[in-house]
Parts: sequence; C-alpha cells; structure tokens
Amino acid sequence: MSDLSQFLDNEPVVATAGTDMLAVSIEQQGSTVSRADWRPPAAGTEDALNVLFSDDRMRDANEVAVGRMLAVRPHLADVKVARDVITGMTDRTFLHAGPPLEWDRASGPMKGAIIGAMLYEGLADDPDDAAARAARGEIELSPCHHHDAVGPMAGVTSPSMPVAVVEDAAGDGVSYSTLNEGLGKVLRYGAFAPEVIDRLRWMDAVLGPVLKAVLASTGPIDLQSLIAQALQMGDDGHNRNRAVTSLFLREIAGALIDGADASVENRRAVFDFINGNDHFMLNLVMAAGKLGSMAASGVPSSSLVTVMARNGTDFGVRLSGTGDRWFIAPAPPVDGLYLGSFTEEDASPDIGDSTITETVGLGGFAMGAAPAIVGFVGGTAAGAVRRTLAMYEITMTEHPMYQVPMLEFRGTPVGIDASRIVRTGVLPQINTGVAGKVPGTGMVGAGLVEAPMECFTQGITALAEVSR
Amino acid sequence: MSDLSQFLDNEPVVATAGTDMLAVSIEQQGSTVSRADWRPPAAGTEDALNVLFSDDRMRDANEVAVGRMLAVRPHLADVKVARDVITGMTDRTFLHAGPPLEWDRASGPMKGAIIGAMLYEGLADDPDDAAARAARGEIELSPCHHHDAVGPMAGVTSPSMPVAVVEDAAGDGVSYSTLNEGLGKVLRYGAFAPEVIDRLRWMDAVLGPVLKAVLASTGPIDLQSLIAQALQMGDDGHNRNRAVTSLFLREIAGALIDGADASVENRRAVFDFINGNDHFMLNLVMAAGKLGSMAASGVPSSSLVTVMARNGTDFGVRLSGTGDRWFIAPAPPVDGLYLGSFTEEDASPDIGDSTITETVGLGGFAMGAAPAIVGFVGGTAAGAVRRTLAMYEITMTEHPMYQVPMLEFRGTPVGIDASRIVRTGVLPQINTGVAGKVPGTGMVGAGLVEAPMECFTQGITALAEVSR
Repeated sequence: MSDLSQFLDNEPVVATAGTDMLAVSIEQQGSTVSRADWRPPAAGTEDALNVLFSDDRMRDANEVAVGRMLAVRPHLADVKVARDVITGMTDRTFLHAGPPLEWDRASGPMKGAIIGAMLYEGLADDPDDAAARAARGEIELSPCHHHDAVGPMAGVTSPSMPVAVVEDAAGDGVSYSTLNEGLGKVLRYGAFAPEVIDRLRWMDAVLGPVLKAVLASTGPIDLQSLIAQALQMGDDGHNRNRAVTSLFLREIAGALIDGADASVENRRAVFDFINGNDHFMLNLVMAAGKLGSMAASGVPSSSLVTVMARNGTDFGVRLSGTGDRWFIAPAPPVDGLYLGSFTEEDASPDIGDSTITETVGLGGFAMGAAPAIVGFVGGTAAGAVRRTLAMYEITMTEHPMYQVPMLEFRGTPVGIDASRIVRTGVLPQINTGVAGKVPGTGMVGAGLVEAPMECFTQGITALAEVSR
Repeated sequence: MSDLSQFLDNEPVVATAGTDMLAVSIEQQGSTVSRADWRPPAAGTEDALNVLFSDDRMRDANEVAVGRMLAVRPHLADVKVARDVITGMTDRTFLHAGPPLEWDRASGPMKGAIIGAMLYEGLADDPDDAAARAARGEIELSPCHHHDAVGPMAGVTSPSMPVAVVEDAAGDGVSYSTLNEGLGKVLRYGAFAPEVIDRLRWMDAVLGPVLKAVLASTGPIDLQSLIAQALQMGDDGHNRNRAVTSLFLREIAGALIDGADASVENRRAVFDFINGNDHFMLNLVMAAGKLGSMAASGVPSSSLVTVMARNGTDFGVRLSGTGDRWFIAPAPPVDGLYLGSFTEEDASPDIGDSTITETVGLGGFAMGAAPAIVGFVGGTAAGAVRRTLAMYEITMTEHPMYQVPMLEFRGTPVGIDASRIVRTGVLPQINTGVAGKVPGTGMVGAGLVEAPMECFTQGITALAEVSR
C-alpha cells in the first residue's frame, strides 16, 4: 500500500536529532518536525569514550562485574550490635549515608540524625550540646559504604545500634544495615525528639535481641527469594516494600509463636512493630543490594556503577573499575509528593544510601512491577512502567530473578553502565523519601529524582585515565 | 492537515460490522476491510430486550441492586460447625457447588467429594459403600447457594465441617463458607484418600477452634479492606490470593503469639497450615462476595447477575429480578494449564461456586490487577488487562474500593448486567481451578473459561416475562 511513489504525495515531515536549532528554524518556516529522542554524549567525554570503546576490555570487564553482582545470594543471618561486627567502628564512630562529609557541610536532616544518635549514645546532654561536640570533632563521621554497610536517608549508624548481618550464601561477603524505625518522626529523617530516642533504645533492648533469637530458630532467611516474590506482588524494593515485609513476617511469625527464645510480651511487641511498618524490609533489601555491589567492585576497566549514594549535600557514585573512588556532584532536589502541609520549601536535597536498590535492579528500575507506588512517590502507573523501560537503555542485562509481571515477566534492568549514561544522556531513575531540611523535622514527603550526570562524566573520565 | 478534500486521495477502507459476508466479499474484490467488534443481540432475545428497554424500570432497578451489592461490609466474625449455623442443614444434608444436582448426574469430582465427605462424617465404610448409599438417596444434596453459603470447586459442605461466619457490618446478612484445604489432593477437587479425610478431621479438631479463638481475641476482621489492599498487591481474589492470605496472616499472627485461647502447638500448627497455602483466603473472599450477592437479590426488574455457579455438570445463573430461579446450561470445558502429566483429557468441566468472585468485581474481572496470575491460569499479562477492560462492557459501574493500579486505579468492573451480555455478546470472563474428571484424582490444572450465553438469554427472557 505504501511505496516511494507516494513519497511526495503527502506533506513532508523533517526528522531532526540533537540540538534544537535545525528543528526550530524549520518550524519557523511552517513545516512539521519530528524530533528524535537523541542527545550527543555528555560534554567533554568524547575522548574518554574513545579510549574505553577502542578495545574489548570494558565490555569484557562489565560482563565479569555484572556477573559477580548477580551471583550473590544474600541471606539474613543474624542481628548484632554495630560496634561488635562493623570493621573500623570505634565508640566515637558515626556512620552516615552517601559520600564522605564533614559536620559543617552536613544538611539539616543529617545534622538532626547525628544529634539524635549522640543523644541515644549518651554522648551529649541535649541537642545543642550534641551539635557543639560534633562541630568540635568529638565524633568521627564515616560513610556507611566505607564499612560494608548501608543506611537509608541520613543512614546514621552509631556503635550501640543493632544491625542486620546479611551473608552471601554463595560467597564470603557480609553486609550490614540498621533496622528500620518506621515512617514520620524517625532518626533517619533527621528527627531527634525523645520519642525517637526512646524507640531506638527499645530497638536495641528488644527488637534486635528478639530478631536474633528468631534467626537462631529459623536459620538464615533468603532475602533474594523474598524480594523476587515481592516484585510479583507490587513491590519495587525501595519505596514500596509492603509485600516483602508481609512475606518476611510470614517467615518469622512461626518462630515468634513458639520458637524464639524471648518473652511472649517481647515476641508480640516485635511482631506488632514490624507489622505496623510496611517499610521495615527496606533496610534489609538495601543490605542485600550492598552485597551485590561489594562483589562487583574492583574489576579493572569496568564501567559498572557499583554505588549511588547521597548524604543530603552531595550525590556520590562509584564505578567497579575505579574501585573506592567517589565521583561527586551536588545532591539534587526531589520532585516530591508532600505530606500534610509540607511543601518543596521544606525539603532537604536528595539523601540516603537507599539508591543501592536502583544499583541492583530495584527501586526506580523496578517501578513497572509496582504501579501502586505512584500513590506514594507521585506520577502515573503508566509512567512507572515507562521509567523501568527507559532503564534498559543504560543497563547491561536483565535480572534473572527480579521480574516485571506487566512486561510479561521480563527481568528488571540491572547493571548500570556509566558509559551508556554518558553516551545516551539517559539518567538513572530513583524513587526516594524526602526529609525536612530543618534538623529534627523528620519525613516531609516522597518523590522521584535522577542521578546527576556530572558523577558519571567524572567517573568515565577517570576510568579512561586508568584504562589508557 | 486533514480535510474532506483528502478523502479520495488515499485508498478507501471499508468498515464492516456484524456477520462476515460483506467483509469477505469486499476482501475478495481486493479492498481493505476494518471489522468492527460488534455482534447482533443473542438470537431470540429481541422481544425480551424490547420489553426490558421500553421503560426505565430495569435501569432504575439495576441502580438499586448494584448499590445494595456494593453497600455490604463483609467481616469475618466467627468459625462455627456447619450444622449449628447453616439454616436447613440436617445430619444428612450435603451442600454442593452450583445449581441443584442429583447423584446420577454428578461429575467425577463432585462424586469424589461427596464420597470423601461421607467417609469424613462416618456415614459409609469405604468409597464404594459411600457411592452406593448416595445413589440410594441416603443423603440429601442441596446447593450451597440455597443456604447462604458458597464452596469452591465441588463445594461439598457436610454437617461436621467448620465454616467461616461472615457478617455484614453494614446490615443484617450472614454468609458461610468452608475453610480452604490447600491445593493438590483435596476434597473440593474430588479427592477422598485417607490423607484428605485426616486433613478434614484436623481442620474440625484444630483449625476451626483455633481460628474461633483468634477471632474472639481480634474481633471481626474486615475482609473488604484486606481484598482492596490485596488488589494493589497483585491478587485478583479468585485464583491469586497470595497477598490477601499474607495480609490475613498479619491480622491474626499477633493473636496466635499471645492472644488466642489455644495450646501453643495448635497455634503454631494453624499458622503453618495457613502459611503453607496461598489460596487459604479464597473461601473467605467467596463468602464476602456471597454477602453482596444476597443483598442484591430480589430487586424486581433488575437484570443484575447475582449468582454464577457450576456443579461440574451444569452452569447456573441467577438474576436479581428473578430471585431464586436458576438459568442453566451445560458446564463448559476450561482452557487450562495442566499440572505435571495431566492433560485436557483428564479435566472435568467447569465446577465451583468460586465464580461468586467474578460476580462481585473480582477474579476474571480483576485480572488486570494480577498480571502474575497468568503463571497459574495461562495467557499473558497484557491479556489479563484486556480481560478486565472487556468486562466494563457488561457491567453497571466501577467498584469504589477494588481498584486496578495498572489502569491508573480505575475501579474494577462490577455489577454484571445480563441485558448487556445478551446485547453485546460479551461473556463474563472467569479464571478457575480444574479438577480431574475421575473421582478421587484431585486438582489437574487451572485456566480460563467464559460463562455460557444460554444462561443469560434464558434469564433475560424470564425477566421480560415477569416485567411485562
């Protein structure tokens, strides 16, 4: 029905790509333009890309790195006290989310969380005293990611806190995360009111020991299996964790009925606490992700993104081939849905290690499995699917276990390739909670954000330098 | 860009509707045909439709009837012994799924389930003895639907069985269902081996009493709220009930830890039993649906479908405006996915009261919320959404609580209008388990089926007669 003879029968349409100058000038002449969704590589990366694509090293290295990321089998093995298990932690060490940070540059929620953790540790008399001591350097700030750990939002992990111990059933890795406190006025969002500190004390006195007793009864719990099932039940593994929390409760409730060595009051209290918090599993999903991230790190020439993390001031990225180096840009604002009377004026910039979920094929990369998440982070269900689809552009493969039912069970996009980000201009999609910028506020909303291009251009440039 | 002057510039396309004769003859002349998806009303219903559409009575009656269906608030209130609560049940009464049935006409799975229930009740020495006694009329067969009850598959409910008592928190209705046994070799699929009978005895000795004690501790459980949440978590309420079973376990696990008046062994056993069966909630979702069905029944002139139910031999339908009358056609075969080495040769025709879920906006009508169900019943995720979309053609409204996230939270299609089925030729979409046709086999698969048109043409004809 259609052949070249018709070519001039219809009005011509001009297809354009790249900058808008050509398109605009054609439109000004009254003709129709169809713009291709194409951008040139990020400015200044042409030489680096030429180096990286000049041979097969990057391609081969990426295959190795993403293979290692996908080979881990994270199991929740134990709950222990942070200072007893986290390497390099002293009584004055306070871990935090994101890349390295000094007190003076810390955002409101980060300062609030550090203040709260100091009060919880008994290292200060009141919030002002805590702030003054922190400013004088009486405590040591260190990124969770420097200690095989991850923490959501402020991510503050202090020596007395109970931490989940996640072991690789297929290897030697061990990762750590704090236990989730719930939503609203909680430490990780920068709140430090007495109720926040009381809850933290209950968590180390009751929650940690009871979960430890449960795990002694059940044995290690396969987190990857629970996450995979939860993606068939509308979770994304970052801001929608209702299904995986339900499945986790199913794993532990038997032991809470008859198996765990703890009082019936404490067993019931632990059940009620987890049952009341559909985000409980976030921290454990994150620790599972960290295990994959650790395994994939340090493969020479690999452009695999192993870490994306924010501290409320900076957004930091690590690539496999550049090991522990951070590539840093300002933390962006979040396009959020706000709680109650809060607005974007109240919001702190992007914060938290929870982007480890996106790094391993969950969160923004798995939103197509979680249409109901849009009630929490905004957007439409169709848009959630489009976000997932867009991420196949910048990833190396499809996850063998994490599937999107609505995409006919296609594996989630996984293995973020910094070279593809730089080449295509497509940025990693993240969904996230939003903290109040004033220390002590807590949660003010949730929303959507993209990782900053600058982190990836720095990373690709550095990778090319070490690959020359 | 487009005006009438272009009309003849392009090749003409002929749109056709109805029978294919016109379309075929145009195609034979080499032209392009676009077929509209339209069918004439079902044969023989023109007069009835003329009567029903001659004034506003049916429209007004449907508004009342579907309003009543949606106004119920089903709560799981108690678990009791069938003979103690079900009206009209004697020691010889055996309830069954679907429309009325005699032993001689019963399908294999129905006979198997009746045999099993007689063994469980101690009314026969062995399967042959049970069959002989049933054939002699020593027991009375009566549809669940005649007793405010529903049962999945064979639906056999005998006097000693524990039944869920579902009360309308917004009215006076009370409905009943047995408790779900799990999958595989189970009574409702026609199995009657000793393990099946032992399980039934455990259910009346332990499961029923412990759940009764749990409910005494928790108070009534809001089933509609759980179902609504589960539709955001990938359930359809018929053959995918994993989320609602998880949420139900979250509701009762606290009482199983410390609140229920039962031994710790039995509390743990009940938890493990329900935790091991992701279909546990099917029966309770069905009883919740029956409550809506009962409330909507008996509105003069209403063409609302209040019941669709199958006994393995017949498919029966009831309309609101014709009250308790059954409109019956042969039970169709199921387009199934088969377990292990079973094939369609092993399958019994469609069976069970579980189509009450489709009748209230769940099951096949809510498959767009449950893309992962296609792994169980067949088809594609996109097809699951299309099934839901098609059902808006034959329903009166959208459910105010049951929503499909992927359709941007549109309410599920609810309130099946028999007049629209007859006018459009669009049949209710059902997903279902498949029983083995040989008594004693159990489950052989699951699949998709449509309700037979004949039930609706009979119903519409009868409705027109009483509406003249």
